[in-house]
Order: sequence, then structure tokens, then C-alpha cells
Amino acid sequence: MGRVGQARDKILIAARTLIAQRGYTALGVAEICAAAGVPKGSFYHFFQSKQALALTVIDEHWTAQRAQWTELLGGDGPPLRRLRDLFEATETVQRSGQQDNGAVVGCLFGNLALELSSQDGDIQGRLQQIFNEQIDLIEQVVTEARDRGDTAAAVDVRDAARSIVAQLEGRVLFAKLLNDPGQLEAMWRNCLALLGVTDPGRTREVLAGARPE
Amino acid sequence: MGRVGQARDKILIAARTLIAQRGYTALGVAEICAAAGVPKGSFYHFFQSKQALALTVIDEHWTAQRAQWTELLGGDGPPLRRLRDLFEATETVQRSGQQDNGAVVGCLFGNLALELSSQDGDIQGRLQQIFNEQIDLIEQVVTEARDRGDTAAAVDVRDAARSIVAQLEGRVLFAKLLNDPGQLEAMWRNCLALLGVTDPGRTREVLAGARPE
Repeated sequence: MGRVGQARDKILIAARTLIAQRGYTALGVAEICAAAGVPKGSFYHFFQSKQALALTVIDEHWTAQRAQWTELLGGDGPPLRRLRDLFEATETVQRSGQQDNGAVVGCLFGNLALELSSQDGDIQGRLQQIFNEQIDLIEQVVTEARDRGDTAAAVDVRDAARSIVAQLEGRVLFAKLLNDPGQLEAMWRNCLALLGVTDPGRTREVLAGARPE
Repeated sequence: MGRVGQARDKILIAARTLIAQRGYTALGVAEICAAAGVPKGSFYHFFQSKQALALTVIDEHWTAQRAQWTELLGGDGPPLRRLRDLFEATETVQRSGQQDNGAVVGCLFGNLALELSSQDGDIQGRLQQIFNEQIDLIEQVVTEARDRGDTAAAVDVRDAARSIVAQLEGRVLFAKLLNDPGQLEAMWRNCLALLGVTDPGRTREVLAGARPE
């Protein structure tokens, strides 16, 4: 990678860390450049504005996270085991964020959604799209689970997927507020209840990939 | 109320509106005073700092919200009907906030939890306490419901209460992001699934206050 690419990456890494720690509004371009060790002039070589930078940070973060979600949710195992893997991976991400930053940083998208929804239509629109894609990915795996009889038959898959993503955001909020990634441990129990999988024996079968009957 | 009390109230009202619209970090004392129509000198007569003001805004908001929650959840009707009333009241609050502010403003506590948890220990501590009290209030009504046989017998009431508050925060996040208070409509269905009330006939009985058997 050339020096030009390095400067852009340094700005993106610094911006992502600073946004995670202090939000978007409080940040200035000068501060981001100082943290990145890059002269302010070169900032505007790569990004038209602080907003353009934030959109790039959001896009790159979602590209990486979507790849992880797609890999975990699209695997070979039983669908609900893949969903459980996603919850565990989310907890692991929050745990390592806590180690790197000294405190749980939460979800970049949730943080910015609450900070900026009434202030920045472009960022709001991008975040709407991302949450919609998250709900789509969860819906696919819940549909697979329902179709093979792993959930209650009456489950509304879209509604369930939306509830799971909402629960994830709410639990990540608790994890951040309490500085405790363990708040995410309940995701799996919660999800089973939501999908009507109430019997422990049935839960074991569903995780093992056994067909009903 | 004397003029002194009026000035303090004007500052509190302006601060609450501005925090709801733009968050805490972006605000300055001068801006709050300008919006309140109060000279900056009198700000420091009432509040030692912007943080002290924010803590007062939080406390007064929780005093009012707790009174509403206590009234709704402590009423005479069947426990799960009271819980449904709380969800409906939350949607109504978001709807009227949308009308007053031009956009859904979300939950003051959730917004500040994500904005400030890693930055301001005092505000973080106060918000932890408030969410804990919310979970306590929900737990009481879920326990009542379980004890009269309205939920699945195996429900872990503390865990369920925490999940309900997390779901509420996640759904309010969606309501804010999509500027759509209707995102809260699913709270009741979600809560029934979580508590193992899956049969529509049983749901009607539970709401009507009919005893099982």
C-alpha cells in the first residue's frame, strides 16, 4: 500500500476509534487529523467533509460486519445454531472492544442512530439501510429454522427478525451502560422464547440439527 | 411560582428540548441560556455546571416517568393488561414527541446512555440506577402475572424484565431511526412470546383477568 493509502487508512482508523469513544458531534477534523498523525490538508484530499468521512467509516464497518454475519449465518450447521453463533460472536466483539478501549464501546450503528437521527438525513438513511439488511439476514435464518420445524409454526419471521435485532441493540446498550459484555449472554434464551422453542430437550435437538419426528 | 423559580424552569425546559434534539456534548451553556431567554449569570445561580444541569434534567424526567409507570403498572387490572398499557403509553409519548419536535426524539435515558457511558461516570451511574428501577417495576408485574398462572411457569422473571426493557430501548431506537412510533406496536406480541403466552384464546383470558382452570 502506498503512502497515500496509508494516510487515508490512518484517518479512517482514528475517526472510527474517536467516534466510538466520544460520538460524532463532539469531533472536529483537526482532532481527527492530530490523532491520525496526518496533516489537515491531506484530510480534504480524501474526504469532502466530516460527514463524508463518517459515511465511509459506517460503510467500511458494515462491509466487515456483514461479511462476518454472512459467514456465520450462511454456514452448514443447523440454522438456530448459526444464530446462536452470531450472538456469541457479538459478545466476543464487545469483549475485545472493551479490552482495546478500556470500556465497552457498543454498536457504532446504534450509537450514531441515537445521536444523529434527527440531525443528519444522509447518515440516518444509511443506517436505516444497514439495520434493514441486518433484519433481512436474520429473517433468512429464522425462515430456514421455521421451515424445518425448529420454531413454533406460527412465528412471523419478519417480526421475529426485527425483534431479535432490537433486542441485540437493547442488550448492547446495557452492555455499554454497565460496561459488561455479559449482558449479551441472555440473547440466546431470549431468542428461543421469542421463537417458541421452550422445551430444553427440543433445544438440544434443534442445536444438534435433528429433524422433528 | 416566583421569577427565580421561573428562570430555573425555563433553563430546565430548554435543556431538555435541546438534549433531546441534539444530544448533550454538542450543547453549550450559552446556547441553553439563549434558548431559555435567561441571562448566563443566572444559570450558575441554579446549576454548578452543565453536568449538574443534565443530572437535574435526568432526575426530573425520571420522577415524572416513574410516576406514570407506577400508576400504569400498579393499577387494578390483570397484570399483563397493565404491562400492555405501559407499551401503549410509551408509543403515545413517542407520537406526541414527534408532533412537538418534528421527529421522534426517542428515550432520553437511552440516548444519553449511548452518548455518555464511556465519558461521564456520574451520568452513567445515574442512568444505571434508572434502568435498574425500570427493570424492578417490570419484574414486579411479571411476577404477579406468573404467580397467577398468566405466563409460562418456567419464566425467569428478572431475566424477562430485563429483556422487556432492552426490547423497549431497541424498539425506541428503531422508532427514532425510522421516525416511526409504530415500531413500538410489536412490543406486546413480543412480550407475550417472551413470557410463553402463545395461544390467542389464552391471551384474551389473560387480558380479561380470567383465572386459569
